[in-house]
Amino acid sequence: MKFCSMCGSSIDRLIPAGDNRERYVCSASECGEIHYQNPRIITGCLPIYKGQILLCKRAIEPRYGLWTLPAGFLENQETTQQGAERESIEEANANLDIKGLYTIFDIPHINQVYFFYRAELVDTGFSAGIESLDVKLFNVEDIPWDELAFPAIKKTLEYYIEDSKNQHFKFRSELLEPSGIR
Amino acid sequence: MKFCSMCGSSIDRLIPAGDNRERYVCSASECGEIHYQNPRIITGCLPIYKGQILLCKRAIEPRYGLWTLPAGFLENQETTQQGAERESIEEANANLDIKGLYTIFDIPHINQVYFFYRAELVDTGFSAGIESLDVKLFNVEDIPWDELAFPAIKKTLEYYIEDSKNQHFKFRSELLEPSGIR
Repeated sequence: MKFCSMCGSSIDRLIPAGDNRERYVCSASECGEIHYQNPRIITGCLPIYKGQILLCKRAIEPRYGLWTLPAGFLENQETTQQGAERESIEEANANLDIKGLYTIFDIPHINQVYFFYRAELVDTGFSAGIESLDVKLFNVEDIPWDELAFPAIKKTLEYYIEDSKNQHFKFRSELLEPSGIR
Repeated sequence: MKFCSMCGSSIDRLIPAGDNRERYVCSASECGEIHYQNPRIITGCLPIYKGQILLCKRAIEPRYGLWTLPAGFLENQETTQQGAERESIEEANANLDIKGLYTIFDIPHINQVYFFYRAELVDTGFSAGIESLDVKLFNVEDIPWDELAFPAIKKTLEYYIEDSKNQHFKFRSELLEPSGIR
């Protein structure tokens, strides 16, 4: 950030009066707008069809060519569930029946919070959206663990497998710290 | 938003190529930065001490003079739990033992998602922070229902009272739609 989006003046990096963090602040005394920056929400689904899991092969960076669950940035004016459904349509043309919020991950080193909803695929009429090279149902034993795009995907799949054993899918919220495949 | 924060040029409101929503886009062809806007997270606590609930009387707008739970915008580089603890110190100098994530509210009409953590006050050495006129423990029967600042506060208190009956505090995630006291 180099210019004030309100008046076009240059930006200073300083701690505003009454605050305790550095912010981007407009240098013009007649404006002085403080430009806060806050974490963003990623929302997505864990789509299941008869015990199989729908994964999408990414056609975009980052992690081009790796497998992911359908997910993306939450937009203004939508709920986290609506965002998860939208992303599933955009990336996989997947019609879902949402079962409930399943995992939340705080990822403070990249200023993101992930939401995943557990969902059942209504039918197998899915197909790759513009952001996917391929979309495919995987049996649990065929999950491409070494080709998953993000740690939050791996964790959500691991919890699904664990919870599948007794068919009790419990909500989890946790911190994800930096790792080799962040 | 009137000016590009990257180059200082004027901003257009348009749907970028490959997108399906209007965004703020820099008008300069050599820049063309797309300025996405996304929902923000509010994170806070439900602090309990021997069955009493700690509320804060707001010393800031909006809802000056009304009662709230300690909460505020999640900052970059912190987890939702850390943010909830920070807000409890800033607003009430309250030392807490966090028990777990308790409520999440999607509030899409104001582009916010609320997180509340259930917490136990470690001691009664709390006091009003700079954003509070007063901080006080309330018995359930004394909660000032007509002077609560936000619907998410009211809902969280209602769930606490309901769950207190059998001491089973279950996580809830739901949509909050516009109301008279949003």
